[in-house]
Amino acid sequence: MKKIAILTSGGDAPGMNNAVRAIAKHAKANNLEAYLVYEGYKGLYNNQIIPADSVDLDAYINHGGTFIYSARFPEFKEASVREVAINNLKKLGIEALVVIGGDGSYKGAQLLHEAGVKTIGLPGTIDNDIAATDYTIGYDTALNTIVDAIDKIRDTAKSHQRIMIVEVMGNGCGDLALYSGLATGAEIIATNQYKLPEDQIAATALELTKQPGRRSIIIVVSEKCYDIKKLEKQVQETTGWDTRSNPLNHIQRGGTPSAQERILASLLGQKAVDFLLEGKSGISVGIIKNDIVGIPILEALSMVNESKNKFVQKAIKFNKLNQSK
Amino acid sequence: MKKIAILTSGGDAPGMNNAVRAIAKHAKANNLEAYLVYEGYKGLYNNQIIPADSVDLDAYINHGGTFIYSARFPEFKEASVREVAINNLKKLGIEALVVIGGDGSYKGAQLLHEAGVKTIGLPGTIDNDIAATDYTIGYDTALNTIVDAIDKIRDTAKSHQRIMIVEVMGNGCGDLALYSGLATGAEIIATNQYKLPEDQIAATALELTKQPGRRSIIIVVSEKCYDIKKLEKQVQETTGWDTRSNPLNHIQRGGTPSAQERILASLLGQKAVDFLLEGKSGISVGIIKNDIVGIPILEALSMVNESKNKFVQKAIKFNKLNQSK
Amino acid sequence: MKKIAILTSGGDAPGMNNAVRAIAKHAKANNLEAYLVYEGYKGLYNNQIIPADSVDLDAYINHGGTFIYSARFPEFKEASVREVAINNLKKLGIEALVVIGGDGSYKGAQLLHEAGVKTIGLPGTIDNDIAATDYTIGYDTALNTIVDAIDKIRDTAKSHQRIMIVEVMGNGCGDLALYSGLATGAEIIATNQYKLPEDQIAATALELTKQPGRRSIIIVVSEKCYDIKKLEKQVQETTGWDTRSNPLNHIQRGGTPSAQERILASLLGQKAVDFLLEGKSGISVGIIKNDIVGIPILEALSMVNESKNKFVQKAIKFNKLNQSK
Amino acid sequence: MKKIAILTSGGDAPGMNNAVRAIAKHAKANNLEAYLVYEGYKGLYNNQIIPADSVDLDAYINHGGTFIYSARFPEFKEASVREVAINNLKKLGIEALVVIGGDGSYKGAQLLHEAGVKTIGLPGTIDNDIAATDYTIGYDTALNTIVDAIDKIRDTAKSHQRIMIVEVMGNGCGDLALYSGLATGAEIIATNQYKLPEDQIAATALELTKQPGRRSIIIVVSEKCYDIKKLEKQVQETTGWDTRSNPLNHIQRGGTPSAQERILASLLGQKAVDFLLEGKSGISVGIIKNDIVGIPILEALSMVNESKNKFVQKAIKFNKLNQSK
Repeated sequence: MKKIAILTSGGDAPGMNNAVRAIAKHAKANNLEAYLVYEGYKGLYNNQIIPADSVDLDAYINHGGTFIYSARFPEFKEASVREVAINNLKKLGIEALVVIGGDGSYKGAQLLHEAGVKTIGLPGTIDNDIAATDYTIGYDTALNTIVDAIDKIRDTAKSHQRIMIVEVMGNGCGDLALYSGLATGAEIIATNQYKLPEDQIAATALELTKQPGRRSIIIVVSEKCYDIKKLEKQVQETTGWDTRSNPLNHIQRGGTPSAQERILASLLGQKAVDFLLEGKSGISVGIIKNDIVGIPILEALSMVNESKNKFVQKAIKFNKLNQSK
Repeated sequence: MKKIAILTSGGDAPGMNNAVRAIAKHAKANNLEAYLVYEGYKGLYNNQIIPADSVDLDAYINHGGTFIYSARFPEFKEASVREVAINNLKKLGIEALVVIGGDGSYKGAQLLHEAGVKTIGLPGTIDNDIAATDYTIGYDTALNTIVDAIDKIRDTAKSHQRIMIVEVMGNGCGDLALYSGLATGAEIIATNQYKLPEDQIAATALELTKQPGRRSIIIVVSEKCYDIKKLEKQVQETTGWDTRSNPLNHIQRGGTPSAQERILASLLGQKAVDFLLEGKSGISVGIIKNDIVGIPILEALSMVNESKNKFVQKAIKFNKLNQSK
Repeated sequence: MKKIAILTSGGDAPGMNNAVRAIAKHAKANNLEAYLVYEGYKGLYNNQIIPADSVDLDAYINHGGTFIYSARFPEFKEASVREVAINNLKKLGIEALVVIGGDGSYKGAQLLHEAGVKTIGLPGTIDNDIAATDYTIGYDTALNTIVDAIDKIRDTAKSHQRIMIVEVMGNGCGDLALYSGLATGAEIIATNQYKLPEDQIAATALELTKQPGRRSIIIVVSEKCYDIKKLEKQVQETTGWDTRSNPLNHIQRGGTPSAQERILASLLGQKAVDFLLEGKSGISVGIIKNDIVGIPILEALSMVNESKNKFVQKAIKFNKLNQSK
Repeated sequence: MKKIAILTSGGDAPGMNNAVRAIAKHAKANNLEAYLVYEGYKGLYNNQIIPADSVDLDAYINHGGTFIYSARFPEFKEASVREVAINNLKKLGIEALVVIGGDGSYKGAQLLHEAGVKTIGLPGTIDNDIAATDYTIGYDTALNTIVDAIDKIRDTAKSHQRIMIVEVMGNGCGDLALYSGLATGAEIIATNQYKLPEDQIAATALELTKQPGRRSIIIVVSEKCYDIKKLEKQVQETTGWDTRSNPLNHIQRGGTPSAQERILASLLGQKAVDFLLEGKSGISVGIIKNDIVGIPILEALSMVNESKNKFVQKAIKFNKLNQSK
């Protein structure tokens, strides 16, 4: 193998730039020529491919987002479209591709692998919803951003004796909600895996308002679990305390990658190149129990992220911890 | 005078704790006994008044919110309620009160002044909507928080070639929107004073999408100017670019006060005590053209924050600057 | 068991407060009465022991340092001193103690265990130099602080085409240097385990100055490896580039704990109580390969943190990655 | 006038990139062609001049340092060297130059002005040591960075009951020390203008150690005022408390510019272009009492930054405030 390409796909995540940098540099150090594909699969189809040598890879080491861009491109599901993309790689003599993205991106990677392109997947998403790794690239930074936001919201909640509902991302995975809740002492945490009924949330909040010295209650919920405006109303009516809902929206995605983010992205990136040098393909690189490992993408796509039961036990435990005075 | 009291009222703002600290310490250094009133005017009525000596004032020097709490208390408009509050002060021998808050709080302060309590007002609100000062306590920190949030949102906007609408606070004052927009290079800024019609925003956005190399557009708007969900839809339909609205909500209020916040709050706090020592009352302390000055609260309440015309000129200039490539 | 006590010892570390909070709350939730010992072993000897119920445990959830304080107390090595401490516990009916600290603190914990006090150790130190855990409480926050500092230093280095030597903590463990170096793209990293000769550092720096487009070189070294003033001089003379040394000193220790810090500290704290409930003693709680586990303190003290060889391989790999363009 | 150039000189400062961006964009909006000179006066001499159009000016809006670099170039004092530089401008048809830098940079700007090049100076330095403005570009960000560092150091000081000496920059101007000290509650502040004798510092520290509940003392000093290692020893010997010195070094310079920094830099940059459009030269742009004003560079260089007496009064007042409990 002489040439490899790199693309980012799906929602942007902090650390993607560090992964791109590590892949391109480690490739070069191993006498591979690295190329960057702009705008994900769309750019692969549109032939937006440039040599990695032509950009300053170090310039983005502390930048959020993805400097090689991402894009939605459902057309990639069509075989004829993929054929154009594969031909673009062939014309440049590129034999392998590293795809950094979420599970949608992984599906594209698997199809390319099946079509004979050597393909490695890196889990890049803030949602931590990829089962083939304990931590996705982007998760640690997003978690820190959310924790910082909730700390700020707590200041106001305490000052005014309020209840604040904070809605965080996760795309079906409860980790951002569960762990930001643990880190900030959120009194109530609810996720898809541990979806408390609205009236139970309101009832628990009511109980908490009766604790002596209680000045604030934070309720962290995963996106798409509740109509938070409705929940806000119900909690306020039940408790009699001012209640406000705060969807965190897009401030959760960007920002300077944390230390661990950059390290994880760099290590996964190096490993992706190592796998390609060993001739492997169709592999997702991840960190499992502190080891950098590879798992077939196909298997990764079918894995369940966490046993529901174990997750629920944790949620119960964290809720209990945070509700006690 | 031997004893003074301090309260915070209205929305919490970073720097309030520094103001309380400076007032209490500067009072003590001038042989005045300082008291803290918890929960604003409500606590004044309910007699929640403790000696400042009983708490560690330095502990909150880098904390957002107000450690002596705030509360809504519309009942304070009633003379009979105020009488109870004034009696609470009298019983403790407290002759003067420093009120830190927004313009609602100032109205209460003026009424107390008229009832014979020596009263000084300090502008504490993130909104910068108090005319008797160039900067309110809380504004600089909130501005930094907003700028940081928009920087993060820009990362995602650039990665995906999107338009992001960011809604910020201001309570009728456009400063948070205007200056966060200038600081982040927001391509379109609109406020109450400079309220662009929705179709003009959409049309400008469309023009911008045609600039070569354009990857993102940030639109910053003041709260209560637009139905941002409707604006999101209109901009998306006009431009064809993915458009997302992001109300920043309560993450704007809390957080560690910035350096300038702590300095401003400390200087205003010291001056409040100096004014009381000079026998003054009914005065709002503020910073105007870098001088710490006093203005009658009554006058402060009637001042217009900024001539609309001058503000609009700035908005036009900043929009123009940020839209050019 | 009815009553347990908690103390922090050795250098302060962010996350200690979260550990104290989790231990005290989880104890209470399991019908144990928790006590706080102020100033570490010194306070144990001086009987500075108060019920955890008397403080607001949630107040310190986002604070660096240790709110129950730490202190040097070499006298604890003496049996007669320990006897006084043990009697203080007995008088209050406290049967168990959780010690949060570094390896010096662990030695004291082991002695108490041997004297019949049920004792659990939690690894609290920024240095990550405790073998019985993959991550110590404090490490992740310190790493983020260092990375942030080096990013700032890089700004100046690039602007002026300079070489910057950054000296970080670690107490003999190279992790802070190695991983902050990886995260910031430091071109040269040297630690106790991978101690490059001064002239080799200078020679490598000289080579790097010859790379086209090279504007800056960051050299990260562990504390106590080099006379950094001398190294600064040698690098400057060899390369001809302005070279500046920056010991990061005490800014590395404090600060708001990161999300992962708070989570780790909370999980370890909960487990400490669980171990006590199971009747265990003389155990160090740690996270190994993502599992919260217990290891005998005696074993923890004798473990070697990492095989030197594996560490050196990583250092070589990271240096290589960061030096390539 | 058709073409203008921009350079940064002296120590890098956050906000310089925002100034460059605003100048280039505002120039373009007024039909002027803008050029960027790399590496300050050295690049002017070496003809490192490129059209501003060729770079993405928005890319550096939240970056510290100066993306057009700076360099020491004492040779610029020689007339023959300046002649080469002026010829380089002439060959490109550039009639005007905006220089962003400290007072050394201003001297060069004045010489160019005298030689017939239309020259405007912008105060770019973290030290706030330029008299023709209340705030220099870089000061607000550096102040926030220092305050954040001292907050961290306070965490450790409190945990261990220590005295911490923090040395900050300022280049002869005490503002960074004085105001970071006020903002962090530093118990002792000393600067060039208010240089307390070592034994007085030690004696004051001793007094403070006797305050009930005192857990920490922070001493903030300006660079080059003391041998801080010697001061550390003296304070420790006098007080008996562990004392540690922390020079903050280069972490003070870089980092993301604060909101106010970006705003100030943008406003000064716009004004620089406005002045050039009015045909002005030899002018320093600054902010004085919230107005953006121009002052002859010659005058700016001879102004005294602040009356020593007024500064000393403030220092006494802040020390007094912070020392009281």
